[in-house]
Amino acid sequence: MDTKKIVEEIIENKAEDGGIQQVYFVACGGSLGAFFSANHFMQSEAKKLKAAAINSNEFVHDTPAAMGVNSVVILCSHAGNTPETVKAAELAHNKGATVIGMTYTPGSPLTEFCDYVVGYKFRTDLEMNFSEDKALVPLTIAVEILNQVEGFEAYDKYQDGLNKIDGIIRNAQKQVEQRALDFAQTYKDDKIIYTMGSGAGYGAAYIQSICIFMEMQWINSSSIHTGEYFHGPFEITDLNTPFLIQMNEGRTRALDERALDFLKKYAKRYEVVDAKELGLSTIEAPVVDYFNQTLFTCVYDIYNFALADARKHPLSTRRYMWKVEY
Amino acid sequence: MDTKKIVEEIIENKAEDGGIQQVYFVACGGSLGAFFSANHFMQSEAKKLKAAAINSNEFVHDTPAAMGVNSVVILCSHAGNTPETVKAAELAHNKGATVIGMTYTPGSPLTEFCDYVVGYKFRTDLEMNFSEDKALVPLTIAVEILNQVEGFEAYDKYQDGLNKIDGIIRNAQKQVEQRALDFAQTYKDDKIIYTMGSGAGYGAAYIQSICIFMEMQWINSSSIHTGEYFHGPFEITDLNTPFLIQMNEGRTRALDERALDFLKKYAKRYEVVDAKELGLSTIEAPVVDYFNQTLFTCVYDIYNFALADARKHPLSTRRYMWKVEY
Repeated sequence: MDTKKIVEEIIENKAEDGGIQQVYFVACGGSLGAFFSANHFMQSEAKKLKAAAINSNEFVHDTPAAMGVNSVVILCSHAGNTPETVKAAELAHNKGATVIGMTYTPGSPLTEFCDYVVGYKFRTDLEMNFSEDKALVPLTIAVEILNQVEGFEAYDKYQDGLNKIDGIIRNAQKQVEQRALDFAQTYKDDKIIYTMGSGAGYGAAYIQSICIFMEMQWINSSSIHTGEYFHGPFEITDLNTPFLIQMNEGRTRALDERALDFLKKYAKRYEVVDAKELGLSTIEAPVVDYFNQTLFTCVYDIYNFALADARKHPLSTRRYMWKVEY
Repeated sequence: MDTKKIVEEIIENKAEDGGIQQVYFVACGGSLGAFFSANHFMQSEAKKLKAAAINSNEFVHDTPAAMGVNSVVILCSHAGNTPETVKAAELAHNKGATVIGMTYTPGSPLTEFCDYVVGYKFRTDLEMNFSEDKALVPLTIAVEILNQVEGFEAYDKYQDGLNKIDGIIRNAQKQVEQRALDFAQTYKDDKIIYTMGSGAGYGAAYIQSICIFMEMQWINSSSIHTGEYFHGPFEITDLNTPFLIQMNEGRTRALDERALDFLKKYAKRYEVVDAKELGLSTIEAPVVDYFNQTLFTCVYDIYNFALADARKHPLSTRRYMWKVEY
């Protein structure tokens, strides 16, 4: 069933109970980060609908009082077996919420408690269209929900963006190939690399910090919001500390530019990944913000393969995951 | 005017326009972090009211579509002159929202665009009662709003908690005095210290990372959510990397305990600040979560004075703030 029909059916089923009033995005780590664009979209655009992105285990132990028959709970687990996320799905189901499970693995434990199971493509799928990316699928669901519940004026522009994003990303990935190799050589021996981002693109910085630098490369990191940078974090800026700064195309670009201006003056070792330079601006202004995250994440792939290679530390190396109980 | 009367007046004034529908907490850095408890409270307890905590500059550039006559916008700036926050207040005022400004500095620029100005006490005020803390004042406003708009069953228990918190914190501060000195000696030469926390207490970990370690001590840091830890960040855990982990009393304690159990096995250098051990449990279960942040922040003060002293790096040292244009 396509996203539009799923949302139509949910609204029909909830009609007698007061319709959809809350949307919760629930997952852990990179899967939670993949929801940040969709959650930001709801926070920015919705007039009435409540939305939140919540870590699965927090959702289980500190369940929002509003969660129930008027809620849509969208969960994501790549292998579909993250215990906290499966438990969160069960809880949402038992409270009468409509549960949409996103997983890469059909038939995985997560799907047991789901009213709808939605797949996505992963960046290792050579034939994928980037509009099916893990961050864009929940965004497309959020756009559908908002449009059908409250109306969303830029709905057609969003669909147009979905049509364009694959070509933009493929070009961008080629564009950064040499830069990625240079980045890898420059930073391969660093013990800490900060990421920076803002607005609807922030999730990409979060994922790059916790899933790539920390998890897959054992490099210390934190994702600094470019608006928050000037209110604490910037004091650690010096000529040695490395930053990977992403420049959104869209509303919060001014925040990123201000941070970059500061880096130009007081830092020396920073890498700029700029959505505007990478061609995102062909997507129309009212919706361009929401495509930053997927663009950055897909471009970081090129950087990450190069970095893992230069460090001789494969992205699949773990000391704890898959190895010890926790 | 007291908080209860302020909220009564706001509701009366908005009665013809549809009442209060959204609450936005808007600030930068430590002042934004001070809102996390109040925002978490709204996210957890509100059935209908929308709420979000947003960096001031992001709020200015990426203003939520819902923000307007049905909104209460609560802003905070200690000196009342943070340009982004003053601009956010002006914007909120111009869009017809009710603006509540929190500042330590009466008559500061922030107050120009405020319908109500609310003070708080700072931890340097020797005569303060900790119920007037920067994180509790907005929480008390949020509790009032929720109670008057939707009803909040544990309202009296919250007031009881407000009466107890001062005594609890004063005892807790004494209790950690020696530990703080030991902590300072043990970690004074470290280049990175992670903080960890969850739920309604997470803001204290955020502030400790960005305002103390990074801003005031130039120590690299990141605040890791204990539920997110197992989905990326935990791979950097080893026998050398230091963690300051806070253990909430309340709903998300299970998340913190799981992270601590892991540290006990695979790390060696970690400091535990435990709200339960520090006496928070005398506050009743339905509201105890919301007092974690202030307890932690005030206890960290003791640690931070000791750390600054041991490192001969006064908390007031800056290289950029007050010194360069940005």
